[in-house]
Amino acid sequence: MTETANDLIALSSDECHRLLTTHRPQLGRLGFVDGGWPMIFPMNYAVESKAIYFKTAPGSKLFAAVTGQQVSFQIDYIAERWEEGYSVLALGRLRTVTDPEETDQVDQLPLRPWARGDRHDYLRLDISSLSGRRIINPA
Amino acid sequence: MTETANDLIALSSDECHRLLTTHRPQLGRLGFVDGGWPMIFPMNYAVESKAIYFKTAPGSKLFAAVTGQQVSFQIDYIAERWEEGYSVLALGRLRTVTDPEETDQVDQLPLRPWARGDRHDYLRLDISSLSGRRIINPA
Repeated sequence: MTETANDLIALSSDECHRLLTTHRPQLGRLGFVDGGWPMIFPMNYAVESKAIYFKTAPGSKLFAAVTGQQVSFQIDYIAERWEEGYSVLALGRLRTVTDPEETDQVDQLPLRPWARGDRHDYLRLDISSLSGRRIINPA
Repeated sequence: MTETANDLIALSSDECHRLLTTHRPQLGRLGFVDGGWPMIFPMNYAVESKAIYFKTAPGSKLFAAVTGQQVSFQIDYIAERWEEGYSVLALGRLRTVTDPEETDQVDQLPLRPWARGDRHDYLRLDISSLSGRRIINPA
């Protein structure tokens, strides 16, 4: 592999939101703190306005532990030869979706969970901060 | 998109280590806690025995902040149609590599950083825990 130099360019909040919305497949990583450790797990997601939605199995220990906590959600795309790419990080708190009207809306989103299960609980990350950077290889 | 059910299977520590070593491209995500927030950034990496190595620009604020801290490193692969995939999470503390002999060894690893720069600092995550799961679509 040849070593080449890349530039990193900070992205605006609007550009981060656009990438979060258009990123395919709609897969990213949820981050949360457990016992001082930064835990990271892949999650399917959907974006609606300033919120990120997730679907999980009812009673999931993961989400019981993180509801209301400071969490993050990250997406990235980096071409194998590193000539281009981006990474976006959203910060916010995670809430359980309980309002039936909102649950119905989330049911319409293209969400699928990792794990098997007939019923689902829905969670919403209210985005309080969005940051990101783009990688560009000027060579 | 058709909704299908998937099974999650926990991976042994040995299997996680094998995936971490063979995963391509050698790109994952470093997690660390900053002000209570779980921060996640993509990083190129290389594995050598029970350590994960990173290359960064000298004086990087990111790494000044996390050296010695509890960090995580995560890789995943998930097929777009979700019929298969895996996710591996390593936990450990991050150290600066200062020993010249070890620096020389790391120079031989296929490592490249995101950002432009002529000189580099090397960092080592001493793995204290490895966990992961595999996704299988039985359909």
